[in-house]
Amino acid sequence: MTAINFAVIGYGGMGSYHVHNIMPNENERIHVVGTYDISGERQKISSQYNHKIYNTLEDVLTDETIEALLIATPNDSHKELAIQALQAGKHVVCEKPVAMNVEELDAILKVAKETGKIFMVHQNRRWDPDFLITRELYKNHQIGELFQIETRVQGANGIPGDWRHELKHGGGMLLDWGVHLLDQLLFLVDSRIEKVSADLSYILGDEVDDGFITYIIFENGVRAIVEVGTTNYTKLPRWYLKGTKGTAIIYDWDLTGEMVIESGKQNIQAPRPVQAGVGLTKTMAPPSEEATETKNLPQGSAEYDPFYKNFYNVVREQAEPVVKNEEVRQVMVLIEEIFKAAKR
Amino acid sequence: MTAINFAVIGYGGMGSYHVHNIMPNENERIHVVGTYDISGERQKISSQYNHKIYNTLEDVLTDETIEALLIATPNDSHKELAIQALQAGKHVVCEKPVAMNVEELDAILKVAKETGKIFMVHQNRRWDPDFLITRELYKNHQIGELFQIETRVQGANGIPGDWRHELKHGGGMLLDWGVHLLDQLLFLVDSRIEKVSADLSYILGDEVDDGFITYIIFENGVRAIVEVGTTNYTKLPRWYLKGTKGTAIIYDWDLTGEMVIESGKQNIQAPRPVQAGVGLTKTMAPPSEEATETKNLPQGSAEYDPFYKNFYNVVREQAEPVVKNEEVRQVMVLIEEIFKAAKR
Repeated sequence: MTAINFAVIGYGGMGSYHVHNIMPNENERIHVVGTYDISGERQKISSQYNHKIYNTLEDVLTDETIEALLIATPNDSHKELAIQALQAGKHVVCEKPVAMNVEELDAILKVAKETGKIFMVHQNRRWDPDFLITRELYKNHQIGELFQIETRVQGANGIPGDWRHELKHGGGMLLDWGVHLLDQLLFLVDSRIEKVSADLSYILGDEVDDGFITYIIFENGVRAIVEVGTTNYTKLPRWYLKGTKGTAIIYDWDLTGEMVIESGKQNIQAPRPVQAGVGLTKTMAPPSEEATETKNLPQGSAEYDPFYKNFYNVVREQAEPVVKNEEVRQVMVLIEEIFKAAKR
Repeated sequence: MTAINFAVIGYGGMGSYHVHNIMPNENERIHVVGTYDISGERQKISSQYNHKIYNTLEDVLTDETIEALLIATPNDSHKELAIQALQAGKHVVCEKPVAMNVEELDAILKVAKETGKIFMVHQNRRWDPDFLITRELYKNHQIGELFQIETRVQGANGIPGDWRHELKHGGGMLLDWGVHLLDQLLFLVDSRIEKVSADLSYILGDEVDDGFITYIIFENGVRAIVEVGTTNYTKLPRWYLKGTKGTAIIYDWDLTGEMVIESGKQNIQAPRPVQAGVGLTKTMAPPSEEATETKNLPQGSAEYDPFYKNFYNVVREQAEPVVKNEEVRQVMVLIEEIFKAAKR
């Protein structure tokens, strides 16, 4: 096994997280040779880790010991960097969002095809345990067939960092957490999209969206609500999932939650009306006790390789990529549709 | 004080609830003389309560001791009954939804105007304590200015009763609980509507909707999500309210809930990144401890009279109705818009 020699372009929050937290999990397959960053300060930090410090991009691209690049720079720079890297004969791992729009992505994919080099986007949240539980419920019908998927991440800290506040760098939350949630959704639901409605939030006064809500109807009948909020002081569950035989909630990344499932018992007493405000309701009364049972959430697991292991196998053994460029493209198409829908 | 003599048309679930649970609260003002129902069984039940039992509608309309009628029949009969009652010189209290559509309502309102008789719709949930808390937050800014209002009722019992399953009777949940939630919303938010998107649910296979989700953008910038579900085995909070300085949750009709508000303290430490699935997030990390405070929900109260007290004052003293027909009409216009938006 010969490890793939990597250079890292952009040693900021994500770049350093790759180097110190993700790549080491595959230390037989992935070897970080060095880093290039426009910030002298970040270069200095990187130099403490026995990394080669490149002074120019050119130096990276002409370094023949380097087989692959990780691009972890602001979103508006991905296209140019990826194209230059591919043309220099390097494989590329690129942070999400892959590019500013579909047009940019297509330009990258054209060069990847021409050069025969691997281009793979780091959609790491396909391995999130909460997502894998949802995927397990979707595939194995513990609450019946899933027909409504509500996926939310909500915080109260506003838009993070610096360049993410700026339109020209591809800032905003739709291109940040939005990409993750939409990638998970399209990876999950095997159907074309019929209808998209959306609303972007600009409550913080930035030029980019500080969150969004989108409602997606798939051709197979599945509905999805996808929401990212940065102005939520307390939050709704991470996942709320409706199936034909039950409902599941995953509250948070700590995987607390439950499923409530119809018991299937016959001759169940009708629910008794409950007081609701100044009226009574039978419709919204809890089902009678024997009508449902509450269960623990199932375990979820990925039957696919971890990201960098997969990347290695794609490069060395022509394996199928877990994150396919066509899928990444579908997410970008959807993001463009969401921007459009919000303007309608 | 001379009580208003009422006859009740339709002694089913709602009719009998009025007679036994709501009207007695105003027993100096409201007197139930008798009932008329097409069901012999329900007439028999009513006769046990010292009610006069009318055998025909004609008998009610020609009974000169009767000053007002309560119409609590299936939705498709409201228009004809209301018009006949008004033309017979009776005041009318009508259950919601007032009619099948705006056209029917306009026909009723025309006759009300011609006859000079009072026509008032029983939008009783303007007095719901959970709604009154929301109204308190909206008016007095305990969590800053409310800019997002999420109002949900969710049950697992399907569409209730018999005629509510049928299109011709005005069945479905948009015309049932939907009317309540939309009436509360429009009573709360003093702004015109800019945009409506909506999706109706037909998961139970009925010819009418078993629930719906609508997203409403008001001209003043407020966003509302209104949802009624009858296929939810476990539920999201009754109210989720976002303000510029905090977020409030009212979980249920029992009024449990809280508000989380920014503390306004200066020099607050930035939130520390937390593990979220296979990645880290600072954006979605909880705010640092000193940055927010959690408080009890405020009390809410109606500064307007209870429904039947108000009705009495409208009839006897030319008081302003709490439930204005123009407001009721706006809700019907919105409901028609929701049906249209769901088809787009």
